[in-house]
Amino acid sequence: MLDAPFAKWIDEHQDELIARLKEAVEIPSVSGDASYRPHVVRMGEWLKAELEKLGAEIRSVPLGKQVLDGQELDLPPALVGSLGNDPKKKTVLVYGHYDVQPAALSDGWKHEPFQFTHDKETGRLYGRGSTDDKGPIMGWINAIQAFQETKTEIPVNLRFCFEGMEESGSEGLEELVIKEAKGEFADVDAVCISDNYWLGTTTPCLTYGLRGLSYFSVSISGPAADLHSGVFGNVVHEPMTDLFDLFSKLVTPQGKILVPGINEKVAPLTDEERKLYEDIDVTLGDFEQAIGAKVTISEDKAEVLMGRMRYPSLSIHGVEGAFSGQGGKTVIPAAVKGKFSIRLVPDLDPDEVNELVQKYLKDEFAKLGSKNTLKVEMLSGGKPWVASIDHWNFRAAKDAIETVYGKTPSYTREGGSIPITLTFAEALGKNVMLLPMGRGDDGAHSTNEKLDLSNYIEGTKTLGQYLLNVPAAAASA
Amino acid sequence: MLDAPFAKWIDEHQDELIARLKEAVEIPSVSGDASYRPHVVRMGEWLKAELEKLGAEIRSVPLGKQVLDGQELDLPPALVGSLGNDPKKKTVLVYGHYDVQPAALSDGWKHEPFQFTHDKETGRLYGRGSTDDKGPIMGWINAIQAFQETKTEIPVNLRFCFEGMEESGSEGLEELVIKEAKGEFADVDAVCISDNYWLGTTTPCLTYGLRGLSYFSVSISGPAADLHSGVFGNVVHEPMTDLFDLFSKLVTPQGKILVPGINEKVAPLTDEERKLYEDIDVTLGDFEQAIGAKVTISEDKAEVLMGRMRYPSLSIHGVEGAFSGQGGKTVIPAAVKGKFSIRLVPDLDPDEVNELVQKYLKDEFAKLGSKNTLKVEMLSGGKPWVASIDHWNFRAAKDAIETVYGKTPSYTREGGSIPITLTFAEALGKNVMLLPMGRGDDGAHSTNEKLDLSNYIEGTKTLGQYLLNVPAAAASA
Repeated sequence: MLDAPFAKWIDEHQDELIARLKEAVEIPSVSGDASYRPHVVRMGEWLKAELEKLGAEIRSVPLGKQVLDGQELDLPPALVGSLGNDPKKKTVLVYGHYDVQPAALSDGWKHEPFQFTHDKETGRLYGRGSTDDKGPIMGWINAIQAFQETKTEIPVNLRFCFEGMEESGSEGLEELVIKEAKGEFADVDAVCISDNYWLGTTTPCLTYGLRGLSYFSVSISGPAADLHSGVFGNVVHEPMTDLFDLFSKLVTPQGKILVPGINEKVAPLTDEERKLYEDIDVTLGDFEQAIGAKVTISEDKAEVLMGRMRYPSLSIHGVEGAFSGQGGKTVIPAAVKGKFSIRLVPDLDPDEVNELVQKYLKDEFAKLGSKNTLKVEMLSGGKPWVASIDHWNFRAAKDAIETVYGKTPSYTREGGSIPITLTFAEALGKNVMLLPMGRGDDGAHSTNEKLDLSNYIEGTKTLGQYLLNVPAAAASA
Repeated sequence: MLDAPFAKWIDEHQDELIARLKEAVEIPSVSGDASYRPHVVRMGEWLKAELEKLGAEIRSVPLGKQVLDGQELDLPPALVGSLGNDPKKKTVLVYGHYDVQPAALSDGWKHEPFQFTHDKETGRLYGRGSTDDKGPIMGWINAIQAFQETKTEIPVNLRFCFEGMEESGSEGLEELVIKEAKGEFADVDAVCISDNYWLGTTTPCLTYGLRGLSYFSVSISGPAADLHSGVFGNVVHEPMTDLFDLFSKLVTPQGKILVPGINEKVAPLTDEERKLYEDIDVTLGDFEQAIGAKVTISEDKAEVLMGRMRYPSLSIHGVEGAFSGQGGKTVIPAAVKGKFSIRLVPDLDPDEVNELVQKYLKDEFAKLGSKNTLKVEMLSGGKPWVASIDHWNFRAAKDAIETVYGKTPSYTREGGSIPITLTFAEALGKNVMLLPMGRGDDGAHSTNEKLDLSNYIEGTKTLGQYLLNVPAAAASA
């Protein structure tokens, strides 16, 4: 139980903090739709003003132009700035994004998505952006305000990086971070990103890893045009036959990757690490509920978690250029592109994986004895990221969670990618931590996105307490 | 060289016969487009009148209704009738279709597709339906007229079956043929269908076989909805992984079907039969030109021909429910349907093939150890058809070709299906022969469809001479 003055202030000013989130949610800052761009810009201006009210120095940094829906548009600016410059204090960089996913009532929302709805019966705060990522950004503002209102000294220097394009590929941000690594972010000691979710609904998490990705397109082409299977079946080498033969050699139905050299590069599991997964507060049933069927590869909770978090995976996504409609069509597709991707974990590097995949597929294709032509292309590659949970950054957050929630956080890794995490880690060379505010069932990119009021309030306290804990945690490092 | 009076009449009245084909081509009887339906009906009326001018008794038989482009329409009627009823003569049923494929100048035609164009330099008659199938129907009419103008007795009784829905699934025709098997077609001794093409451009063909078809849809489903591969990769059994594993066991890149029991049911090849293929006037280069690439499984002409004509084939057509767009999408499809089909030859029966495929795929799926669900469905099945080329029907046609063209026809089988052929063979229990008029490069369903004038004129003579040959051929049977 946290009874610090700033926490008490937060409890006593809940209505004010809810009103702040309401204001933010009701600006429909959808970055992926050109017609909403003025709202994204307005949201950035609103956020800049809120931060400036707290005394922060904020620059609105133009990121150039983009073409969207056939129009050339200015990218929404990034907000870069600082609060505090005491050389005796540690400096923490806080990241968030003020843009949101698209949403429409007709998608199946119970309430207007851009009308903030506080359901007092369930304690849920509904609205697009409530949990992704306006709630967490408001959390930082709330915490700083609470410090100031209660004359609590903020024991760290803060740096801010808020963007308006996260839901649309974070265009322009990587270059900005690399540039500011020698500018605004030069003194940063640690980074805290609050933009993901607890694994479940009851236990707070700290996230220390993300999988990387190598996405492949495998083209097999033969005839000059699609052929009729009656006329050319058993006459030509069919690209689809070759593709199915080749892709059947990528991964087993049990998820084991068959490309030689991949599994060998995965860091071996330690007993200590396995225990981390066993300790995570989630059940097989939670997974089966999320999947909607009992189709997990393993029925051991820790194995399922490790399948997502600490082992690579290979998924076949589809085929371009083949028949994909309903019913039947007797076509021999002349040229097809099979798509698959590999999720990467340390020590797998996308370029190395590309080499392994290229060599393997070319060797296997040669064995087919087909006269068709193979081309293997890596469409995109992103490295995996894992941070040390022994760093003071994580300890400060762990202690904060224990103080606020009275329970130890689960240490989680995400199966997917949040590319900006890796950018911060590589450009700054500092510890990066993901400290989620919302729950696993918040529906971030789905309909009826919500943030539980308790997560908003206790999450705000957690962010504040984390900052308060930094000096002691860093001192004992 | 044929110097019979009817043939001389044909040579001397070429302009009249060309004018008849022009009239037919310029009625745009597209059966697959509701807005053209009145033209299809008009074409049927025109054809009925032409036949009646020759003294034939023709009934216009309504075939019921269909829904097309959102409208309920009357199906174009079938024309059923007779010319001659002499019990001492053999009775030959002639089939053709008076509807055509869609066509538009914008598809890449050099001339308006429904404006008949006689290119005198190349001797080509351009227009939609010129070769498929108005040229051959005019051929029958021309030949009968030539007999009548030259007082040549027609030594057979004729029965007619002309439909207006062949390009749109021959709706209603099967029922009609089965019914008329005990009516108008009760006395039929043999059937002649002129609705396919020579294999190449120089040697006339007689076609005695068609492959059948078993079309399969293989559903594999697991999760309740599509999943994110970052979050669920290596967590769930992925339907796509199972599908690729399963389909890789269907056929080799060399076209060998791996479903046990299929190859065993294919009639063994005799030396005599192999010689038929070696004698066919076509080269590997002809195939490579049609395919647009050097990707034939075999480089032996006879093997290539047999791959198309006398062996089964298995083609994988595509996947429904997976990612099929351009670029990359990191989805784990929750439920997919793989589509493949097997072309059937004697003695493969679609129902038996269905049983073999069902059992094989279920057995192989069980070996995968996947928790997903498999469902195998045969969407459609059609039997193969092979006729005896020793029948007098074929001998009458062979002799006619030798007389008219001065060369022996190639005996061919088609790799695809013409379902009505099998219907005639089964409903009437008589020999059915395909006697093509046009060449392999006529572009039947493509742009710039044409019929060479020489094929039109010599083809007309061939149809006539075939009828004249029937009594002698039948007598020596």
